[in-house]
Amino acid sequence: MPDSDTTVAQLKKIMDDFVAARDWHQFHDAKNLSASIAIEAAELMEHFQWLHSDDVAAVADNAKQMAEIREEVADICAYLLSFATTMNIDLSDALAAKLQKNDTKYPVDRYYGRFKPADQPQK
Amino acid sequence: MPDSDTTVAQLKKIMDDFVAARDWHQFHDAKNLSASIAIEAAELMEHFQWLHSDDVAAVADNAKQMAEIREEVADICAYLLSFATTMNIDLSDALAAKLQKNDTKYPVDRYYGRFKPADQPQK
Amino acid sequence: MPDSDTTVAQLKKIMDDFVAARDWHQFHDAKNLSASIAIEAAELMEHFQWLHSDDVAAVADNAKQMAEIREEVADICAYLLSFATTMNIDLSDALAAKLQKNDTKYPVDRYYGRFKPADQPQK
Amino acid sequence: MPDSDTTVAQLKKIMDDFVAARDWHQFHDAKNLSASIAIEAAELMEHFQWLHSDDVAAVADNAKQMAEIREEVADICAYLLSFATTMNIDLSDALAAKLQKNDTKYPVDRYYGRFKPADQPQK
Repeated sequence: MPDSDTTVAQLKKIMDDFVAARDWHQFHDAKNLSASIAIEAAELMEHFQWLHSDDVAAVADNAKQMAEIREEVADICAYLLSFATTMNIDLSDALAAKLQKNDTKYPVDRYYGRFKPADQPQK
Repeated sequence: MPDSDTTVAQLKKIMDDFVAARDWHQFHDAKNLSASIAIEAAELMEHFQWLHSDDVAAVADNAKQMAEIREEVADICAYLLSFATTMNIDLSDALAAKLQKNDTKYPVDRYYGRFKPADQPQK
Repeated sequence: MPDSDTTVAQLKKIMDDFVAARDWHQFHDAKNLSASIAIEAAELMEHFQWLHSDDVAAVADNAKQMAEIREEVADICAYLLSFATTMNIDLSDALAAKLQKNDTKYPVDRYYGRFKPADQPQK
Repeated sequence: MPDSDTTVAQLKKIMDDFVAARDWHQFHDAKNLSASIAIEAAELMEHFQWLHSDDVAAVADNAKQMAEIREEVADICAYLLSFATTMNIDLSDALAAKLQKNDTKYPVDRYYGRFKPADQPQK
C-alpha cells in the first residue's frame, strides 16, 4: 500500500483498527496522544542529536539507521492519525487550509530563500 | 480534498510545492525537520498542558480551541510529510510495516485493555 | 552533595568537567543542547504517557520507576546546565528575573487557583 | 542571587513559593510538569530551528534573542525544580549519581572526542 495509492482515510482506519482490537481507545485521549507524538518526535530527533548540519544528509546512506528512522516516522504518523481520529479532524482539509493561510502570511516574492520570521520567536 | 479522497502522495506534493516555491528546501534537512515536528507537537500539547484527564474530552466542544488545534495538527503533518519526502520514506508502507511488527509484539489476547509494557521505560 | 549545600555554579562545574574530560564541547552547541533537553524531557514524559491524572501520584511509591525518573531528571539537568554554560547564562538570575516578571503577569489576587491564560494558546 | 551564591534548595524554594501563592500545586502533578518541561524545551529549540550548525554560535551576539533565550531557559528551570520538588528528588544528588554512572559507561580513554554510542539509537 504505497503513498501513491493510499488515502489518509485508509491509514486512519488501519490505525484505528489496531487500537480498537486491543481496547486501547481508553488510553488514547487527546492529551496522551499529543504527548505521544512529542515522545516519538524526540526519538526521531535522537538520530540527529549530535550531528553537524553538514553530516545530516549522509544518514540517508546508512541502511540500518534508515530502518530505525522509518520506524520512528511510522510511530509519529500512527499517533498523529489516532489524534486526528479522536478529535474528528480531517488531516487533508486541515493541511490544505493551513498551507493556504501560510501562503498569505509568507508570500513567495518576499520570502523566497529567506527565513520565516515566525520561526524566530518574538515574544 | 477530504481524507477519504486524498492520497498521502498528494499531500506530500502540495507540501513539497509550498516549500519549493519559497526555496526552503535548503532549510528542510532531516535534523531541522525532526526538531520542527517536535516543536509543533509541543504546541499541540500546550492545549492540554494543565488539564486533568477527566476534562480533556470537553475540548472538542470548544470551537475556538479546536480551530487552533486543527492548525497545530496541520503543522505537525506538514513537517512529517516534508521529512518523509526529504528522507525518501513511503509513509503508508512504513506505517503498515510498523503496525505488523507491533501486532506480533503486542498480541491481542495478551494486551487487550492493558498497558503496553514498551511504554513503561525499562532502562 | 545535597541541594541544600550545593550551589548552581558547583553543578555547572561538575557537568562542564565531565564534558571537557571527553572533549565533547565540540558537540555541545546551543542547537544540539536545546534538542538534547527536549529529548530527555520526552523520556521523562514516557513514564506518565498513558496514565490517567488520578494515577500519577502513585508513581512516587514505585521504587524502580522512581530510580529511572531520577536518572531522566538528572539528564535534563545536565543538558540545561551545559546549555547555560555554553550560552553564558546565570540560571539563578534568569529564574529570579522570570518569576518577578510572571509575578506581574499573574497577580496572586487574580490567578489564585485559576489556570494561567498564557497556557491556553491564543494564536 | 548569582549561581555562585545560590543553592539548588534556594531555587526550589522561590519556585515553590511562587506556585503555592497561586494555589497552583493542584495543576503541578508529575505528568503535567514533565510535559511542561518538554513544551519549554521546544520553545528554546525554536530559536535554533532553521540554523545551520555554523551559524549557531553567532546567536550569542544577538542581545534581543539572548534575552528571549534566557527566559525560555528560566521556564525550563522553573518546571524542572517544580518536578523535583513534587517527586521529592534531590537534583544535586541525582546529577552526581548519573555523572558517576556515565563516567563508567563512557570511560575517558575510549570516548575522548568521540560520539556517545547511546546517542545513536540502537533499537
